[in-house]
Amino acid sequence: MEQLTIVKIGGNVIDNSENLHRFLQDFTALSGKKILVHGGGKIATELGTSLGVEAKMVEGRRITDIETLRVVTMVYAGLINKNMVAQLQSKACNAIGLTGADGNIITAVKRPVKTIDYGFVGDLDEASVSSETLTSLLEAGLVPVLCAITHDGDGQLLNTNADTIASAVAVAMSAVYDTRLVYCFEKKGVLRDVEDESSLVPEIKAGDFEGLKEQGVVSGGMIPKLHNAFEAIKNGVKMVYIGKADELPQVNTNDFGTRLIS
Amino acid sequence: MEQLTIVKIGGNVIDNSENLHRFLQDFTALSGKKILVHGGGKIATELGTSLGVEAKMVEGRRITDIETLRVVTMVYAGLINKNMVAQLQSKACNAIGLTGADGNIITAVKRPVKTIDYGFVGDLDEASVSSETLTSLLEAGLVPVLCAITHDGDGQLLNTNADTIASAVAVAMSAVYDTRLVYCFEKKGVLRDVEDESSLVPEIKAGDFEGLKEQGVVSGGMIPKLHNAFEAIKNGVKMVYIGKADELPQVNTNDFGTRLIS
Repeated sequence: MEQLTIVKIGGNVIDNSENLHRFLQDFTALSGKKILVHGGGKIATELGTSLGVEAKMVEGRRITDIETLRVVTMVYAGLINKNMVAQLQSKACNAIGLTGADGNIITAVKRPVKTIDYGFVGDLDEASVSSETLTSLLEAGLVPVLCAITHDGDGQLLNTNADTIASAVAVAMSAVYDTRLVYCFEKKGVLRDVEDESSLVPEIKAGDFEGLKEQGVVSGGMIPKLHNAFEAIKNGVKMVYIGKADELPQVNTNDFGTRLIS
Repeated sequence: MEQLTIVKIGGNVIDNSENLHRFLQDFTALSGKKILVHGGGKIATELGTSLGVEAKMVEGRRITDIETLRVVTMVYAGLINKNMVAQLQSKACNAIGLTGADGNIITAVKRPVKTIDYGFVGDLDEASVSSETLTSLLEAGLVPVLCAITHDGDGQLLNTNADTIASAVAVAMSAVYDTRLVYCFEKKGVLRDVEDESSLVPEIKAGDFEGLKEQGVVSGGMIPKLHNAFEAIKNGVKMVYIGKADELPQVNTNDFGTRLIS
Protein backbone atom coordinates (compact mmCIF):
# COMPACT_ATOMS: atom_id res chain seq x y z
CA MET A 1 0.00 0.00 0.00
CA GLU A 2 1.07 3.56 -0.67
CA GLN A 3 2.03 5.72 2.30
CA LEU A 4 -0.23 8.46 3.72
CA THR A 5 0.87 10.90 6.43
CA ILE A 6 -1.74 12.72 8.50
CA VAL A 7 -0.42 15.69 10.48
CA LYS A 8 -2.38 17.43 13.23
CA ILE A 9 -1.47 20.92 14.48
CA GLY A 10 -3.01 23.04 17.20
CA GLY A 11 -3.18 26.62 18.38
CA ASN A 12 0.51 26.85 19.31
CA VAL A 13 1.40 26.64 15.60
CA ILE A 14 -1.60 28.52 14.20
CA ASP A 15 -1.41 31.56 16.51
CA ASN A 16 2.13 32.53 15.54
CA SER A 17 2.43 33.57 11.89
CA GLU A 18 6.19 32.87 11.78
CA ASN A 19 5.75 29.37 13.23
CA LEU A 20 2.86 28.74 10.88
CA HIS A 21 4.82 29.86 7.84
CA ARG A 22 7.72 27.55 8.72
CA PHE A 23 5.40 24.67 9.53
CA LEU A 24 3.57 24.99 6.19
CA GLN A 25 6.94 25.00 4.41
CA ASP A 26 7.95 21.78 6.22
CA PHE A 27 4.54 20.21 5.64
CA THR A 28 4.83 20.95 1.91
CA ALA A 29 8.25 19.24 1.89
CA LEU A 30 6.88 16.01 3.45
CA SER A 31 7.09 13.30 0.83
CA GLY A 32 4.11 11.24 -0.32
CA LYS A 33 0.39 11.68 0.10
CA LYS A 34 -0.69 13.74 3.09
CA ILE A 35 -3.58 15.33 4.99
CA LEU A 36 -3.41 18.27 7.42
CA VAL A 37 -5.83 18.56 10.35
CA HIS A 38 -5.94 21.79 12.30
CA GLY A 39 -7.62 22.99 15.46
CA GLY A 40 -8.57 26.48 16.44
CA GLY A 41 -6.48 28.85 18.42
CA LYS A 42 -6.79 32.20 20.06
CA ILE A 43 -8.41 33.85 17.04
CA ALA A 44 -11.82 32.25 17.71
CA THR A 45 -11.75 33.35 21.34
CA GLU A 46 -10.71 36.87 20.30
CA LEU A 47 -13.43 37.12 17.66
CA GLY A 48 -15.99 35.81 20.16
CA THR A 49 -14.94 38.50 22.64
CA SER A 50 -15.18 41.21 19.95
CA LEU A 51 -18.71 40.05 19.14
CA GLY A 52 -19.74 39.81 22.79
CA VAL A 53 -19.96 36.00 22.58
CA GLU A 54 -18.51 34.92 25.91
CA ALA A 55 -16.75 31.57 26.22
CA LYS A 56 -19.26 29.48 28.16
CA MET A 57 -17.87 26.90 30.57
CA VAL A 58 -19.79 24.31 32.62
CA GLU A 59 -17.76 22.28 35.15
CA GLY A 60 -14.58 23.33 33.36
CA ARG A 61 -15.85 22.20 29.96
CA ARG A 62 -16.38 24.57 27.05
CA ILE A 63 -19.94 24.75 25.73
CA THR A 64 -20.67 25.36 22.03
CA ASP A 65 -23.92 27.30 21.94
CA ILE A 66 -25.32 28.51 18.60
CA GLU A 67 -23.39 31.82 18.71
CA THR A 68 -20.13 30.02 19.51
CA LEU A 69 -20.78 27.61 16.63
CA ARG A 70 -21.16 30.59 14.27
CA VAL A 71 -17.85 32.00 15.52
CA VAL A 72 -15.88 28.75 15.17
CA THR A 73 -17.40 28.07 11.74
CA MET A 74 -16.27 31.51 10.57
CA VAL A 75 -12.80 31.27 12.11
CA TYR A 76 -11.89 27.59 11.62
CA ALA A 77 -13.55 26.91 8.24
CA GLY A 78 -13.16 30.47 6.90
CA LEU A 79 -10.31 32.58 8.20
CA ILE A 80 -7.77 29.99 9.37
CA ASN A 81 -8.47 27.23 6.87
CA LYS A 82 -8.57 29.43 3.76
CA ASN A 83 -5.50 31.48 4.66
CA MET A 84 -3.63 28.24 5.30
CA VAL A 85 -4.75 26.86 1.93
CA ALA A 86 -3.67 30.06 0.13
CA GLN A 87 -0.25 29.88 1.80
CA LEU A 88 0.17 26.19 0.92
CA GLN A 89 -0.78 26.98 -2.69
CA SER A 90 1.93 29.65 -2.79
CA LYS A 91 4.40 26.88 -1.87
CA ALA A 92 3.09 24.67 -4.69
CA CYS A 93 1.23 22.36 -2.31
CA ASN A 94 -2.15 21.72 -3.98
CA ALA A 95 -4.20 22.11 -0.79
CA ILE A 96 -7.99 21.88 -0.58
CA GLY A 97 -9.63 23.12 2.63
CA LEU A 98 -12.56 21.15 4.00
CA THR A 99 -14.94 20.63 6.89
CA GLY A 100 -16.47 17.23 7.59
CA ALA A 101 -19.61 18.41 5.73
CA ASP A 102 -17.70 18.86 2.45
CA GLY A 103 -18.00 15.70 0.39
CA ASN A 104 -19.72 14.18 3.45
CA ILE A 105 -16.25 13.28 4.76
CA ILE A 106 -17.09 13.20 8.48
CA THR A 107 -20.55 12.69 9.94
CA ALA A 108 -20.75 13.22 13.69
CA VAL A 109 -23.45 12.74 16.30
CA LYS A 110 -24.44 15.71 18.45
CA ARG A 111 -23.23 14.83 21.94
CA PRO A 112 -26.19 13.50 23.97
CA VAL A 113 -27.23 15.64 26.94
CA LYS A 114 -26.55 13.81 30.22
CA THR A 115 -25.61 16.06 33.14
CA ILE A 116 -24.07 18.70 30.85
CA ASP A 117 -25.44 20.04 27.56
CA TYR A 118 -22.30 20.66 25.49
CA GLY A 119 -24.38 22.25 22.74
CA PHE A 120 -23.31 21.85 19.11
CA VAL A 121 -20.45 19.43 19.73
CA GLY A 122 -20.04 16.38 17.52
CA ASP A 123 -18.79 12.97 18.64
CA LEU A 124 -17.33 10.48 16.20
CA ASP A 125 -17.71 6.71 15.98
CA GLU A 126 -16.13 4.07 13.75
CA ALA A 127 -18.57 4.83 10.91
CA SER A 128 -18.07 8.62 10.99
CA VAL A 129 -15.34 8.98 8.37
CA SER A 130 -16.03 8.09 4.75
CA SER A 131 -12.72 7.29 3.08
CA GLU A 132 -14.19 7.50 -0.42
CA THR A 133 -14.11 11.26 -1.05
CA LEU A 134 -10.74 11.69 0.70
CA THR A 135 -9.29 8.92 -1.47
CA SER A 136 -10.64 10.59 -4.65
CA LEU A 137 -9.05 13.88 -3.63
CA LEU A 138 -5.69 12.30 -2.74
CA GLU A 139 -5.67 10.34 -6.01
CA ALA A 140 -6.34 13.61 -7.89
CA GLY A 141 -3.10 14.97 -6.37
CA LEU A 142 -4.85 17.19 -3.83
CA VAL A 143 -3.81 17.70 -0.20
CA PRO A 144 -6.88 17.88 2.08
CA VAL A 145 -6.71 20.43 4.91
CA LEU A 146 -9.38 19.56 7.47
CA CYS A 147 -10.67 21.92 10.13
CA ALA A 148 -12.44 20.92 13.34
CA ILE A 149 -16.01 21.29 12.03
CA THR A 150 -18.18 18.31 11.09
CA HIS A 151 -21.90 17.86 10.37
CA ASP A 152 -24.71 15.57 11.47
CA GLY A 153 -26.01 14.73 7.98
CA ASP A 154 -29.26 16.58 8.71
CA GLY A 155 -27.95 20.06 7.89
CA GLN A 156 -26.37 20.90 11.25
CA LEU A 157 -22.67 21.79 11.55
CA LEU A 158 -20.93 20.57 14.73
CA ASN A 159 -17.75 21.60 16.57
CA THR A 160 -15.50 18.55 16.90
CA ASN A 161 -12.17 17.95 18.63
CA ALA A 162 -9.32 18.11 16.10
CA ASP A 163 -7.27 15.32 17.77
CA THR A 164 -10.31 13.05 17.48
CA ILE A 165 -10.79 13.99 13.82
CA ALA A 166 -7.12 13.25 13.04
CA SER A 167 -7.33 9.85 14.71
CA ALA A 168 -10.67 8.86 13.14
CA VAL A 169 -9.46 9.92 9.67
CA ALA A 170 -6.22 7.95 10.15
CA VAL A 171 -8.11 4.80 11.15
CA ALA A 172 -10.51 5.07 8.19
CA MET A 173 -7.74 5.79 5.68
CA SER A 174 -5.60 2.89 6.91
CA ALA A 175 -7.90 0.59 4.93
CA VAL A 176 -6.65 2.29 1.76
CA TYR A 177 -3.12 3.51 2.59
CA ASP A 178 -0.20 2.61 4.82
CA THR A 179 -1.15 5.39 7.24
CA ARG A 180 0.93 7.19 9.86
CA LEU A 181 -0.39 9.89 12.15
CA VAL A 182 1.71 12.80 13.42
CA TYR A 183 0.52 14.83 16.42
CA CYS A 184 2.34 18.15 16.83
CA PHE A 185 2.20 19.73 20.27
CA GLU A 186 4.36 22.01 22.40
CA LYS A 187 6.85 19.37 23.66
CA LYS A 188 9.48 17.25 21.86
CA GLY A 189 7.44 14.13 22.68
CA VAL A 190 6.99 11.91 25.73
CA LEU A 191 9.64 13.04 28.24
CA ARG A 192 10.89 10.99 31.22
CA ASP A 193 11.26 14.37 32.96
CA VAL A 194 8.78 16.97 31.62
CA GLU A 195 11.24 19.75 32.47
CA ASP A 196 14.07 18.14 30.46
CA GLU A 197 13.69 18.03 26.68
CA SER A 198 16.73 15.74 26.44
CA SER A 199 14.85 13.03 28.33
CA LEU A 200 12.78 12.12 25.24
CA VAL A 201 11.43 8.58 25.05
CA PRO A 202 12.01 7.80 21.33
CA GLU A 203 9.69 4.82 21.07
CA ILE A 204 6.87 3.22 23.02
CA LYS A 205 5.35 -0.15 22.17
CA ALA A 206 1.65 -0.73 22.91
CA GLY A 207 2.61 -3.41 25.46
CA ASP A 208 4.80 -0.97 27.42
CA PHE A 209 2.11 1.69 27.87
CA GLU A 210 0.66 0.34 31.13
CA GLY A 211 4.13 0.00 32.72
CA LEU A 212 5.08 3.57 31.77
CA LYS A 213 1.85 4.83 33.32
CA GLU A 214 2.66 2.99 36.56
CA GLN A 215 6.22 4.39 36.56
CA GLY A 216 4.74 7.89 36.11
CA VAL A 217 6.68 8.48 32.85
CA VAL A 218 3.32 8.98 31.17
CA SER A 219 1.01 11.12 33.25
CA GLY A 220 -1.58 13.89 33.14
CA GLY A 221 -2.85 14.98 29.74
CA MET A 222 -0.41 12.60 28.05
CA ILE A 223 -2.41 9.55 29.21
CA PRO A 224 -5.55 10.19 27.06
CA LYS A 225 -3.31 11.29 24.13
CA LEU A 226 -1.39 8.02 24.18
CA HIS A 227 -4.49 5.99 24.89
CA ASN A 228 -6.12 7.39 21.73
CA ALA A 229 -2.92 6.86 19.75
CA PHE A 230 -2.71 3.18 20.71
CA GLU A 231 -6.43 2.76 19.91
CA ALA A 232 -5.68 4.13 16.42
CA ILE A 233 -2.81 1.64 16.08
CA LYS A 234 -5.03 -1.22 17.24
CA ASN A 235 -7.45 -0.18 14.47
CA GLY A 236 -4.99 -0.22 11.59
CA VAL A 237 -2.80 2.90 11.79
CA LYS A 238 0.83 1.85 11.23
CA MET A 239 2.56 4.37 13.48
CA VAL A 240 1.74 7.45 15.55
CA TYR A 241 4.30 10.18 16.24
CA ILE A 242 3.99 12.78 18.99
CA GLY A 243 6.41 15.69 18.82
CA LYS A 244 7.17 19.32 18.18
CA ALA A 245 5.95 21.05 15.01
CA ASP A 246 9.33 22.65 14.25
CA GLU A 247 10.95 19.20 13.99
CA LEU A 248 8.46 17.97 11.35
CA PRO A 249 11.16 17.35 8.65
CA GLN A 250 12.45 14.51 10.88
CA VAL A 251 9.27 12.54 10.10
CA ASN A 252 10.87 11.77 6.72
CA THR A 253 13.73 9.97 8.51
CA ASN A 254 11.40 8.30 11.04
CA ASP A 255 13.17 10.24 13.81
CA PHE A 256 10.41 12.62 14.97
CA GLY A 257 9.47 12.93 18.65
CA THR A 258 8.11 9.79 20.28
CA ARG A 259 7.11 6.92 17.96
CA LEU A 260 4.20 4.78 19.09
CA ILE A 261 4.00 1.34 17.51
CA SER A 262 2.08 -1.89 18.03
CA MET B 1 -20.10 16.19 -24.33
CA GLU B 2 -21.86 15.70 -21.03
CA GLN B 3 -23.98 18.57 -19.73
CA LEU B 4 -22.87 20.85 -16.87
CA THR B 5 -25.12 23.46 -15.26
CA ILE B 6 -23.58 26.36 -13.31
CA VAL B 7 -26.02 28.28 -11.11
CA LYS B 8 -25.22 31.63 -9.50
CA ILE B 9 -27.24 33.02 -6.60
CA GLY B 10 -26.92 36.30 -4.71
CA GLY B 11 -27.94 37.91 -1.47
CA ASN B 12 -31.68 37.88 -2.20
CA VAL B 13 -31.66 34.08 -1.93
CA ILE B 14 -29.01 33.74 0.79
CA ASP B 15 -30.45 36.29 3.22
CA ASN B 16 -33.83 34.56 3.58
CA SER B 17 -33.57 31.11 5.15
CA GLU B 18 -36.90 29.96 3.70
CA ASN B 19 -35.92 31.04 0.16
CA LEU B 20 -32.51 29.44 0.61
CA HIS B 21 -33.98 26.15 1.81
CA ARG B 22 -36.33 25.97 -1.19
CA PHE B 23 -33.59 26.99 -3.59
CA LEU B 24 -31.21 24.29 -2.30
CA GLN B 25 -33.99 21.72 -2.71
CA ASP B 26 -34.53 22.81 -6.32
CA PHE B 27 -30.78 22.93 -6.98
CA THR B 28 -30.43 19.36 -5.67
CA ALA B 29 -33.20 18.26 -8.04
CA LEU B 30 -31.43 19.70 -11.12
CA SER B 31 -30.36 16.81 -13.30
CA GLY B 32 -26.77 16.20 -14.41
CA LYS B 33 -23.47 17.62 -13.25
CA LYS B 34 -23.63 21.02 -11.57
CA ILE B 35 -21.75 23.78 -9.76
CA LEU B 36 -23.19 26.42 -7.43
CA VAL B 37 -21.63 29.90 -7.17
CA HIS B 38 -22.79 32.20 -4.39
CA GLY B 39 -22.19 35.80 -3.44
CA GLY B 40 -22.41 37.40 -0.06
CA GLY B 41 -25.42 39.08 1.39
CA LYS B 42 -26.35 41.15 4.36
CA ILE B 43 -24.56 38.87 6.86
CA ALA B 44 -21.09 40.17 5.95
CA THR B 45 -22.23 43.78 6.33
CA GLU B 46 -23.88 42.95 9.66
CA LEU B 47 -20.78 41.14 10.98
CA GLY B 48 -18.59 44.04 9.84
CA THR B 49 -20.80 46.47 11.73
CA SER B 50 -20.69 44.29 14.88
CA LEU B 51 -16.89 44.29 14.68
CA GLY B 52 -16.65 48.01 14.00
CA VAL B 53 -15.42 47.39 10.44
CA GLU B 54 -17.27 50.08 8.49
CA ALA B 55 -18.12 49.50 4.83
CA LYS B 56 -15.65 51.77 3.02
CA MET B 57 -16.80 53.42 -0.18
CA VAL B 58 -14.78 55.56 -2.60
CA GLU B 59 -16.72 57.22 -5.42
CA GLY B 60 -19.61 54.85 -4.79
CA ARG B 61 -17.40 51.73 -5.00
CA ARG B 62 -16.86 49.36 -2.11
CA ILE B 63 -13.26 49.03 -0.92
CA THR B 64 -11.93 45.74 0.49
CA ASP B 65 -9.34 46.72 3.08
CA ILE B 66 -7.62 44.01 5.13
CA GLU B 67 -10.29 44.04 7.88
CA THR B 68 -13.07 43.77 5.31
CA LEU B 69 -11.23 40.88 3.65
CA ARG B 70 -11.13 39.06 7.02
CA VAL B 71 -14.86 39.59 7.43
CA VAL B 72 -15.81 38.37 3.94
CA THR B 73 -13.47 35.37 4.24
CA MET B 74 -15.16 34.38 7.50
CA VAL B 75 -18.70 34.94 6.24
CA TYR B 76 -18.50 33.79 2.59
CA ALA B 77 -16.03 30.89 2.92
CA GLY B 78 -17.01 29.93 6.48
CA LEU B 79 -20.52 30.72 7.65
CA ILE B 80 -22.51 30.88 4.40
CA ASN B 81 -20.59 28.32 2.36
CA LYS B 82 -20.39 25.63 5.05
CA ASN B 83 -24.00 25.96 6.19
CA MET B 84 -25.08 25.70 2.56
CA VAL B 85 -22.92 22.58 2.10
CA ALA B 86 -24.36 20.98 5.25
CA GLN B 87 -27.91 21.68 4.03
CA LEU B 88 -27.17 20.26 0.57
CA GLN B 89 -25.68 17.14 2.17
CA SER B 90 -28.90 16.69 4.18
CA LYS B 91 -30.72 16.60 0.81
CA ALA B 92 -28.29 13.95 -0.51
CA CYS B 93 -26.48 16.43 -2.77
CA ASN B 94 -22.77 15.62 -2.33
CA ALA B 95 -21.62 19.25 -2.09
CA ILE B 96 -18.04 20.40 -1.52
CA GLY B 97 -17.53 24.04 -0.56
CA LEU B 98 -14.56 25.87 -2.06
CA THR B 99 -12.81 29.18 -2.56
CA GLY B 100 -10.66 29.82 -5.60
CA ALA B 101 -7.59 28.99 -3.47
CA ASP B 102 -8.79 25.41 -2.85
CA GLY B 103 -7.25 23.13 -5.43
CA ASN B 104 -5.92 26.31 -7.07
CA ILE B 105 -9.23 26.56 -8.93
CA ILE B 106 -9.24 30.34 -9.50
CA THR B 107 -6.17 32.56 -9.51
CA ALA B 108 -6.93 36.28 -9.63
CA VAL B 109 -4.82 39.42 -9.99
CA LYS B 110 -5.14 42.09 -7.31
CA ARG B 111 -6.81 45.02 -9.04
CA PRO B 112 -4.11 47.56 -10.02
CA VAL B 113 -4.32 50.93 -8.28
CA LYS B 114 -5.20 53.68 -10.76
CA THR B 115 -7.28 56.51 -9.34
CA ILE B 116 -8.92 54.26 -6.73
CA ASP B 117 -7.27 51.61 -4.56
CA TYR B 118 -9.93 48.91 -4.29
CA GLY B 119 -7.81 46.98 -1.82
CA PHE B 120 -7.91 43.19 -1.79
CA VAL B 121 -10.12 42.75 -4.83
CA GLY B 122 -9.24 40.15 -7.44
CA ASP B 123 -9.79 40.50 -11.19
CA LEU B 124 -10.00 37.47 -13.46
CA ASP B 125 -8.63 36.89 -16.94
CA GLU B 126 -8.97 34.02 -19.44
CA ALA B 127 -6.24 32.02 -17.64
CA SER B 128 -7.68 32.42 -14.12
CA VAL B 129 -9.78 29.26 -13.91
CA SER B 130 -8.11 25.86 -13.96
CA SER B 131 -10.66 23.31 -15.14
CA GLU B 132 -8.56 20.35 -13.97
CA THR B 133 -9.48 20.20 -10.27
CA LEU B 134 -13.14 21.07 -10.92
CA THR B 135 -13.30 18.27 -13.49
CA SER B 136 -11.77 15.77 -11.02
CA LEU B 137 -14.34 16.76 -8.40
CA LEU B 138 -17.29 16.54 -10.82
CA GLU B 139 -16.09 13.17 -12.10
CA ALA B 140 -15.88 11.95 -8.49
CA GLY B 141 -19.60 12.73 -8.17
CA LEU B 142 -19.09 15.89 -6.11
CA VAL B 143 -20.99 19.16 -6.51
CA PRO B 144 -18.64 22.16 -6.08
CA VAL B 145 -20.08 25.14 -4.19
CA LEU B 146 -17.90 28.17 -4.91
CA CYS B 147 -17.87 31.35 -2.85
CA ALA B 148 -16.65 34.76 -4.00
CA ILE B 149 -13.11 34.45 -2.62
CA THR B 150 -10.09 33.76 -4.84
CA HIS B 151 -6.31 33.96 -4.33
CA ASP B 152 -3.31 35.45 -6.12
CA GLY B 153 -1.12 32.33 -5.98
CA ASP B 154 1.30 34.09 -3.64
CA GLY B 155 -0.64 33.40 -0.44
CA GLN B 156 -3.08 36.31 -0.60
CA LEU B 157 -6.85 35.78 -0.60
CA LEU B 158 -8.87 38.22 -2.72
CA ASN B 159 -12.52 39.31 -2.77
CA THR B 160 -13.95 38.67 -6.24
CA ASN B 161 -17.30 39.39 -7.87
CA ALA B 162 -19.47 36.25 -7.87
CA ASP B 163 -21.06 37.00 -11.29
CA THR B 164 -17.56 37.22 -12.76
CA ILE B 165 -16.54 33.93 -11.10
CA ALA B 166 -19.64 32.16 -12.46
CA SER B 167 -18.95 33.41 -15.97
CA ALA B 168 -15.19 32.61 -15.90
CA VAL B 169 -15.84 29.11 -14.52
CA ALA B 170 -18.49 28.50 -17.20
CA VAL B 171 -16.13 29.55 -19.99
CA ALA B 172 -13.28 27.36 -18.67
CA MET B 173 -15.53 24.33 -18.14
CA SER B 174 -17.08 24.63 -21.61
CA ALA B 175 -13.88 23.02 -22.95
CA VAL B 176 -14.82 19.86 -21.02
CA TYR B 177 -18.62 19.91 -20.77
CA ASP B 178 -21.64 21.17 -22.68
CA THR B 179 -21.99 24.09 -20.25
CA ARG B 180 -24.98 26.27 -19.45
CA LEU B 181 -24.94 29.14 -16.98
CA VAL B 182 -27.93 30.19 -14.87
CA TYR B 183 -28.00 33.61 -13.21
CA CYS B 184 -30.63 33.93 -10.51
CA PHE B 185 -31.68 37.47 -9.59
CA GLU B 186 -34.76 39.25 -8.27
CA LYS B 187 -36.70 39.48 -11.57
CA LYS B 188 -38.22 36.81 -13.84
CA GLY B 189 -35.68 37.74 -16.53
CA VAL B 190 -35.38 40.50 -19.11
CA LEU B 191 -38.73 42.36 -19.09
CA ARG B 192 -40.04 44.64 -21.86
CA ASP B 193 -41.62 46.62 -19.02
CA VAL B 194 -39.66 46.29 -15.75
CA GLU B 195 -42.87 46.80 -13.77
CA ASP B 196 -44.68 43.97 -15.56
CA GLU B 197 -43.45 40.41 -14.92
CA SER B 198 -45.68 39.13 -17.72
CA SER B 199 -43.63 41.10 -20.26
CA LEU B 200 -40.77 38.56 -20.11
CA VAL B 201 -38.53 38.30 -23.17
CA PRO B 202 -38.09 34.49 -23.35
CA GLU B 203 -35.06 34.46 -25.65
CA ILE B 204 -32.43 36.86 -26.94
CA LYS B 205 -29.96 36.02 -29.69
CA ALA B 206 -26.50 37.62 -29.58
CA GLY B 207 -27.27 39.47 -32.82
CA ASP B 208 -30.39 41.09 -31.31
CA PHE B 209 -28.64 42.55 -28.25
CA GLU B 210 -27.66 45.88 -29.83
CA GLY B 211 -31.17 46.44 -31.19
CA LEU B 212 -32.79 45.73 -27.80
CA LYS B 213 -30.41 48.24 -26.17
CA GLU B 214 -31.41 50.88 -28.73
CA GLN B 215 -35.11 50.13 -28.16
CA GLY B 216 -34.53 50.52 -24.40
CA VAL B 217 -35.79 46.97 -23.68
CA VAL B 218 -32.37 46.28 -22.15
CA SER B 219 -31.20 49.15 -19.97
CA GLY B 220 -29.45 50.07 -16.74
CA GLY B 221 -27.80 47.26 -14.77
CA MET B 222 -29.11 44.71 -17.27
CA ILE B 223 -26.69 45.96 -19.95
CA PRO B 224 -23.44 44.78 -18.28
CA LYS B 225 -25.17 41.53 -17.17
CA LEU B 226 -26.15 40.71 -20.74
CA HIS B 227 -22.85 41.93 -22.15
CA ASN B 228 -21.00 39.49 -19.86
CA ALA B 229 -23.43 36.70 -20.72
CA PHE B 230 -22.89 37.13 -24.47
CA GLU B 231 -19.12 37.27 -23.92
CA ALA B 232 -19.40 33.89 -22.14
CA ILE B 233 -21.40 32.51 -25.07
CA LYS B 234 -18.84 33.85 -27.54
CA ASN B 235 -16.21 31.95 -25.52
CA GLY B 236 -17.88 28.55 -25.57
CA VAL B 237 -20.78 28.57 -23.10
CA LYS B 238 -23.81 26.95 -24.78
CA MET B 239 -26.55 28.99 -23.14
CA VAL B 240 -27.05 31.55 -20.40
CA TYR B 241 -30.31 31.90 -18.48
CA ILE B 242 -31.28 34.92 -16.40
CA GLY B 243 -34.26 34.50 -14.12
CA LYS B 244 -35.81 34.15 -10.69
CA ALA B 245 -34.39 31.63 -8.20
CA ASP B 246 -37.81 30.24 -7.26
CA GLU B 247 -38.38 29.15 -10.85
CA LEU B 248 -35.15 27.11 -11.02
CA PRO B 249 -36.95 23.76 -11.72
CA GLN B 250 -37.92 25.20 -15.12
CA VAL B 251 -34.26 25.02 -16.18
CA ASN B 252 -34.83 21.27 -16.66
CA THR B 253 -37.45 22.04 -19.34
CA ASN B 254 -35.39 24.87 -20.88
CA ASP B 255 -38.17 27.30 -19.91
CA PHE B 256 -36.43 29.42 -17.24
CA GLY B 257 -36.42 33.22 -17.41
CA THR B 258 -34.68 34.73 -20.42
CA ARG B 259 -32.51 32.41 -22.52
CA LEU B 260 -29.47 33.97 -24.16
CA ILE B 261 -28.04 32.09 -27.13
CA SER B 262 -25.51 32.69 -29.87
